[in-house]
Amino acid sequence: MSIPILAVETLRSEPGRGLASRADELSVEEPLEIRVAGEPLAITLRTPGHDHELVAGFLLSEGLIRTRADLGSVVHCGNLGSEGYGNVIDVAAAPGAVLDIEALGHTRRGTLTTAACGLCGRTLINDLLERLTPAPASEPFTRAFIADSVAQLRAHQPTFDRTGGLHAAGIARPNTGFAVVREDVGRHNAVDKAIGRLLLDGLVPAQGALLVVSGRISFELVQKALAAGLAGVAGVSAPSSLAVSTAARFRLLLCGFARAGSFNVYAGAERLAAEA
Amino acid sequence: MSIPILAVETLRSEPGRGLASRADELSVEEPLEIRVAGEPLAITLRTPGHDHELVAGFLLSEGLIRTRADLGSVVHCGNLGSEGYGNVIDVAAAPGAVLDIEALGHTRRGTLTTAACGLCGRTLINDLLERLTPAPASEPFTRAFIADSVAQLRAHQPTFDRTGGLHAAGIARPNTGFAVVREDVGRHNAVDKAIGRLLLDGLVPAQGALLVVSGRISFELVQKALAAGLAGVAGVSAPSSLAVSTAARFRLLLCGFARAGSFNVYAGAERLAAEA
Repeated sequence: MSIPILAVETLRSEPGRGLASRADELSVEEPLEIRVAGEPLAITLRTPGHDHELVAGFLLSEGLIRTRADLGSVVHCGNLGSEGYGNVIDVAAAPGAVLDIEALGHTRRGTLTTAACGLCGRTLINDLLERLTPAPASEPFTRAFIADSVAQLRAHQPTFDRTGGLHAAGIARPNTGFAVVREDVGRHNAVDKAIGRLLLDGLVPAQGALLVVSGRISFELVQKALAAGLAGVAGVSAPSSLAVSTAARFRLLLCGFARAGSFNVYAGAERLAAEA
Repeated sequence: MSIPILAVETLRSEPGRGLASRADELSVEEPLEIRVAGEPLAITLRTPGHDHELVAGFLLSEGLIRTRADLGSVVHCGNLGSEGYGNVIDVAAAPGAVLDIEALGHTRRGTLTTAACGLCGRTLINDLLERLTPAPASEPFTRAFIADSVAQLRAHQPTFDRTGGLHAAGIARPNTGFAVVREDVGRHNAVDKAIGRLLLDGLVPAQGALLVVSGRISFELVQKALAAGLAGVAGVSAPSSLAVSTAARFRLLLCGFARAGSFNVYAGAERLAAEA
């Protein structure tokens, strides 16, 4: 599936010259509403395409499903070809499974409404962490694999080359390279799509795999990596304090500023292979 | 108020060398729960500090308030010095004002639950746009002002220089320069803080001012600029398709890829001064 691009005419302003018309290409951003059994759950602004993966990855990240077996149908609402078709998607649980939308911590926050004030800050961080599980044990990574994977992500960003407006996320394994790479206007969406692809292929939990991202490494990316059972996260940019402390607590490798063969290890160094 | 930074020890990996310990600094990311009259409204992962501005800007962006006069108290919950203090903040409406949390489209989606399927995609985009109002008329901008403002934002990012992990947003006016610049681990938070500062100072709607951002220009940034009554948005990076179409529809200037004195005008070119 190709990623949509919108061709537009822009006006180019350069010092000492008049405005000049110029053709340009934009990354496409449209809303997607995710419903569970008809009830609205969340709206995300995403690049259309790979919506089933996005939904699968989102539900996994948010703790509503654990594996492919929990997921029943995922279908776009409405009639193909009608206006706005494709921007609402409805999810049903698999027979015997339950999609507990009250578990959706960030936006529904069912567990937080009774938090006693005074302890509220502590309760809040604990609520964020309580659904997370430690990264499963796996074969150690070589440092060369980490540096190479981050370097190679860029080669898998065809749409970024044209619009400059997309984030990318890939999931790589030693020896076999990238299992999937996805691009999206949203940093989180790109990760949800990549993880969602693995889930739909029955490959979650994905022990021993590395999430590689084009953007900054925030808490939410660490949360998504842990939900998918990955072994590490690496990228070209900076991690946040909460991303680092969470990765350390749940034994996830976290590498940032991976550029020109070098990188910084912020957490989970025990997942690196001993090297001569 | 200084922006918090966390000093950490990392392991540096460079080709052909063993891992070496190195001191590094991280941008701080912590959750903030926003409550209205005690009821949880939203959780955002933000850099602590300027929380009152963040809340004011968030409520403005989401349509719950229009001006300073709608806002009553904004107070952190709990006791100063207790664990987690500062990560929950409670808002009360001003006497005579109403904070309608059901208006919070993105996360509560009260208006969407009755959307008839089949028209749902169209309804969804209309819902996103229906609260927006056109940017007020104002004096035209010179092209030099736009290029200079984007170039100068970088000089106002002291914490980025140390951690590489923060986004910045500033609000500038011709002749007087930046009224405010804020940094945050979240792109949207930085904008909410900058706009919130103006609102708390009674300067919203902010006709004739320009929002300058360090990151990509998405729909939500355009939405925030319109909510604050700004005249334009400019930045070093790419806009999305929905950002451009929304800016065009609501007569907001939108300039991207502003680098080395040049930039592209994607919408609202009528807000540029005629130049020789």
